[in-house]
Amino acid sequence: MSAENNVEIICVGNELLIGKTLNTNAHWLAKRITSLGLKVRRITVVGDELNEIAAATREAVERKPCFIVVTGGLGPTFDDKTLEGVALGLNRKLQENEEALEMIRAKYERYVAEGRIKEYEMTPHRVKMGRLPEGAKPLPNPVGTAPGVILEHEGIKMVMLPGVPQEMKSIFDESVASMMRSLAGDLTFYEVSLEVRKLPESELAPILDEVMHDNPYVYIKSHPKAAEKTSYLELHFSTTCKDSNVARQRIGRAVVQISEMIKKKGGIIRPIKK
Amino acid sequence: MSAENNVEIICVGNELLIGKTLNTNAHWLAKRITSLGLKVRRITVVGDELNEIAAATREAVERKPCFIVVTGGLGPTFDDKTLEGVALGLNRKLQENEEALEMIRAKYERYVAEGRIKEYEMTPHRVKMGRLPEGAKPLPNPVGTAPGVILEHEGIKMVMLPGVPQEMKSIFDESVASMMRSLAGDLTFYEVSLEVRKLPESELAPILDEVMHDNPYVYIKSHPKAAEKTSYLELHFSTTCKDSNVARQRIGRAVVQISEMIKKKGGIIRPIKK
Repeated sequence: MSAENNVEIICVGNELLIGKTLNTNAHWLAKRITSLGLKVRRITVVGDELNEIAAATREAVERKPCFIVVTGGLGPTFDDKTLEGVALGLNRKLQENEEALEMIRAKYERYVAEGRIKEYEMTPHRVKMGRLPEGAKPLPNPVGTAPGVILEHEGIKMVMLPGVPQEMKSIFDESVASMMRSLAGDLTFYEVSLEVRKLPESELAPILDEVMHDNPYVYIKSHPKAAEKTSYLELHFSTTCKDSNVARQRIGRAVVQISEMIKKKGGIIRPIKK
Repeated sequence: MSAENNVEIICVGNELLIGKTLNTNAHWLAKRITSLGLKVRRITVVGDELNEIAAATREAVERKPCFIVVTGGLGPTFDDKTLEGVALGLNRKLQENEEALEMIRAKYERYVAEGRIKEYEMTPHRVKMGRLPEGAKPLPNPVGTAPGVILEHEGIKMVMLPGVPQEMKSIFDESVASMMRSLAGDLTFYEVSLEVRKLPESELAPILDEVMHDNPYVYIKSHPKAAEKTSYLELHFSTTCKDSNVARQRIGRAVVQISEMIKKKGGIIRPIKK
């Protein structure tokens, strides 16, 4: 796939680096972006430090993906440094964005109306969420307070999303997914998973080589698995294609070929229902 | 913490980039390495491509951590490219390592003795697992077939572990943990988690600023959480220190201070048992 389909994910948060939090955000984003027809090329996790965020931003920009998605570090606290770090990495200033401040004010007014808080003030910590890198625009947050942020840099779209999974997902689905889908054109991602038993991975290896060679558009990956003393292999077939019939045909052909070869070697193969 | 305590984790596998697999390996390693007293500075995820693995290796080496841990891509199949990619990144040749080949042979002999396979041959796919970067040594794999690999490059220790979690963990615990512990000296990591209710994050923010400022050795992080319509904040206090009494005192002092400030604002704070 060409570089113009590449996406990079940057996750910001010390909690990921000390192993406090499992990175389900990267997992969700990778699956979602792949299903939209784009290719995630790299995931980078850095801590809540300005220079680390700036460096990860610069390095991702240098690899020229079509999209960079950053999650985490958009909130009001001192350790939410993503916007400042991204601005530093892109050599832009941070400046108060009226549209973003308006979104934040509207949120707090609703919280007051709903009786969740008594009153509110635009404290420096709240204003902070509305200070965006120059040229950036806010994206509405249907769930929380901090707006998402989007900007364009050297032809790359860059999106900053909160680290709270529910907020990240809803901003992505509401504002980002459609942009990615139109970048991908009509490409879609198809996949099928199979389970292989009674055949060691090293005997499967030459079979995979042959089937991959004969089916250049199908990506096949094997995963050794173990469950209750028996071990087995999971095979994952995938393809990205404009025409859904062609995609199904491609995967079907590869599955038939590999099934025959595995049975001939005494192995058992069956589909995995997900 | 000084750069000599920094560790980088590189995870190799397309399944991570398409969102098929949740990266529990990075999570386990980050937690384990932190608890050994070292600091994980960055986690990088790349696909099963030679140039991607080589680039991630080179970039990590340039940041001069004390340790680089690579997981995934050590098996016998065509898409297991980690050793070749690391060798490329370090400008080393791949060469058959007698000790590694012996470990692999011994494994298959045991499989035959146990009746798990009838007979075996050192096929090219099996020999492949014993081709290591020049100067590297194999680490015994107590669970699976592919040995772990260790080498030293410009003063950096670099360890390659399989992607199968059970194999990764057992090689790490058996061969890597003790090396990291001795690099860390007597440093240990201490942490305490608290839950705050009835106080919005933006009101907590200035309190956190003050407590962080007064307690420079304690790292405090807040995580907004939501459960069944009520939202709350989780506060995570941590410190890394040689003396366990000092560590406890440091965290204790910060917790007492923040508790008083939160109660004064009408919030509720209580410890989280883990």
